Amino acid sequence: MTVLSPAPYKGTRDMYPEDLLKRNYIFETWKKTMLESGFSEYDSSIIESSEAFIIKSGQELGGEQLYSFEDKGGRGIALRPELTLSFARLIAQKYESLKFPIRWFSIANCFRYERPQKGRIREFYQLEINIAGCDRGPVDLEILNLSAEIFKAFGAKKEQYKIIFNSRLILEEWVSRNNWQSKKLEIFKILDNWYKKTEDETLTSLREILPEMDSQKILETCKQQGQSWQEYLSIAGENPEIKLILENIQQIQPDVDIQFAATIIRGQAYYTGLIFEAFDTNKENNRSLFGGGRFDNLLDLYGKKISAIGLAPGDVPWQEFLDSWNLWPAKLQSKTKVGIMVSSQNQLSEVFTKIIPELKKQGKIFDIDYSFERSENKRYETLKKRGADEILKV
Amino acid sequence: MTVLSPAPYKGTRDMYPEDLLKRNYIFETWKKTMLESGFSEYDSSIIESSEAFIIKSGQELGGEQLYSFEDKGGRGIALRPELTLSFARLIAQKYESLKFPIRWFSIANCFRYERPQKGRIREFYQLEINIAGCDRGPVDLEILNLSAEIFKAFGAKKEQYKIIFNSRLILEEWVSRNNWQSKKLEIFKILDNWYKKTEDETLTSLREILPEMDSQKILETCKQQGQSWQEYLSIAGENPEIKLILENIQQIQPDVDIQFAATIIRGQAYYTGLIFEAFDTNKENNRSLFGGGRFDNLLDLYGKKISAIGLAPGDVPWQEFLDSWNLWPAKLQSKTKVGIMVSSQNQLSEVFTKIIPELKKQGKIFDIDYSFERSENKRYETLKKRGADEILKV
Repeated sequence: MTVLSPAPYKGTRDMYPEDLLKRNYIFETWKKTMLESGFSEYDSSIIESSEAFIIKSGQELGGEQLYSFEDKGGRGIALRPELTLSFARLIAQKYESLKFPIRWFSIANCFRYERPQKGRIREFYQLEINIAGCDRGPVDLEILNLSAEIFKAFGAKKEQYKIIFNSRLILEEWVSRNNWQSKKLEIFKILDNWYKKTEDETLTSLREILPEMDSQKILETCKQQGQSWQEYLSIAGENPEIKLILENIQQIQPDVDIQFAATIIRGQAYYTGLIFEAFDTNKENNRSLFGGGRFDNLLDLYGKKISAIGLAPGDVPWQEFLDSWNLWPAKLQSKTKVGIMVSSQNQLSEVFTKIIPELKKQGKIFDIDYSFERSENKRYETLKKRGADEILKV
Repeated sequence: MTVLSPAPYKGTRDMYPEDLLKRNYIFETWKKTMLESGFSEYDSSIIESSEAFIIKSGQELGGEQLYSFEDKGGRGIALRPELTLSFARLIAQKYESLKFPIRWFSIANCFRYERPQKGRIREFYQLEINIAGCDRGPVDLEILNLSAEIFKAFGAKKEQYKIIFNSRLILEEWVSRNNWQSKKLEIFKILDNWYKKTEDETLTSLREILPEMDSQKILETCKQQGQSWQEYLSIAGENPEIKLILENIQQIQPDVDIQFAATIIRGQAYYTGLIFEAFDTNKENNRSLFGGGRFDNLLDLYGKKISAIGLAPGDVPWQEFLDSWNLWPAKLQSKTKVGIMVSSQNQLSEVFTKIIPELKKQGKIFDIDYSFERSENKRYETLKKRGADEILKV
């Protein structure tokens, strides 16, 4: 008979009970935070039309990274590489009957065909959060507030993370006032890499694509210093939704490091207003944890119009964030586990009709040992090794 | 621009918040029951090697019904059609270090390429429950007890369901004593269909394959009457694990209809002892809800040996069971929802720093309306339609 390898499929994770306790802690804390923040949970299938991703996401997500197949009926299907498309599809499907604004979240898995490496695996989970059918303004502020609440729910402290926001509208206006339109994409790319590069590297990149004076202006803006940063700030002050955030965010979240900066861009082309990104500040894990923004073109694919804003933290970077600051609770499984040592078959009825219901009433969980023929000492040791806090001989 | 259809992939379900509340109620009740019954939760990827299913499950699950593909690296992969293989793989992988017996459960989705129809869709969830590395006997009794507990957790009453058990060992012995070996598979098939056919239909099928006297004997056993049923019972009485169940089950679960009968077979070839099946007794939904049994060949695929027992209720039949007896709780979302009507931007800071934290403290959830320009009456109506129990003007 063929003997198979028990290894999981490359880039996927087997979650043994001790691993799952950790992931469940993240998911349950996310879920609690979202419900307390007035959001409703939804879900959808992992299979979507592959065409939708190819149209929506272009070469990267819709191309090499997409798990796309033909089903036995010849339909082009894909394992979703992200959750926003499914959200858009659900909204489009009940566009006429839903009571907007919709405040929804989902926690679900996605697949991307990538070379597995630290922080990047082929199957990962995201917390997809969206508000659709909302005016610009207060909701933008609320989403930034929510981003901070997600950190706080895990007990993260001010110095452990930061949230940086910006707006595509301000970026566009700034580029336009300086007549940099022809080099816009190159400039955006440099800003986007600000946190990954040294100042010298950024300056070198800038000099390559722009005359020296302009490079200096952009660098000033990146560093939030000098005349050029003042110009950027003044454009922001003219924008009502960013003005609203600047005026309120410190008061709402005084104990969170939330900054406004030109250096947040967000790769995707579809953002149309507020954009933001959250970072771990630990030098050992200095990385982006999640990002989000406003995209008022969410339903274009389905021939409908709606405004939307969203963010999507992933389980893999989130676990690394909790690791980096050791934010895990002391005990992930907090219930007392009673090891029941059953002395003979004659006790079974008592165990199931009296002992176990009583433990349940006391909020305890149990393990049970039926190996009547073994010595009590050995049975005791086994139950202890399997994690029993107390032993009960019946 | 291409406009796409927002319909979900055929045979999959979009879970809008009101749908997901129902499914979450099932999953949370399952999970609570399992944790209280001393089981630990695990999880694994939806992608498994397609080869494993082809070898394990043969033509049906490994063939036409399997969602199998090649990934971009040429590996044969499949979306799992059931969860037992993944459980076996995880056990095999840590065979040397796990502390047996393992008492584990998982709630996860599976795919089968079927023509969608009532109770059968292409994507469904299962509660996979297994104990591995356990002697026959008390654990068999425990699994039947657990099956009853799953029903009771939803408030199901004695007359709404029944659980029927049998043993492959007794079936084999009975066939052997009557010298029916050459027609064993046909007899098993007829017994397996007992609950789906009338007595006349069963008798006709029996007469086709057996001389009249034998048919009568089998019918007597099906009906749990007469000499032949006594013979079946006496074989059962000689089998220690079935004897243990017969002697204890009424005392352990006096308010559950648990019967021993020859008419439970379970299709899969791999069962090696106890087999059982649970049925809805509602005439409108007279169907099998789940089944299970002992399979002591679980790790054969991975070249290892272990005994195991398990069952796997599915979310689709379970939802239909709850529908058939209206066992849903009166309110799936029990928290009070407060609709916050914000009167102007100036109130935002108060809303986020005082109002919302206070609601959270009170265990209430909220909805929020920022449409400052609309009339109070209209805003009130909107919040009510969106499900607010109370309105709070700020």
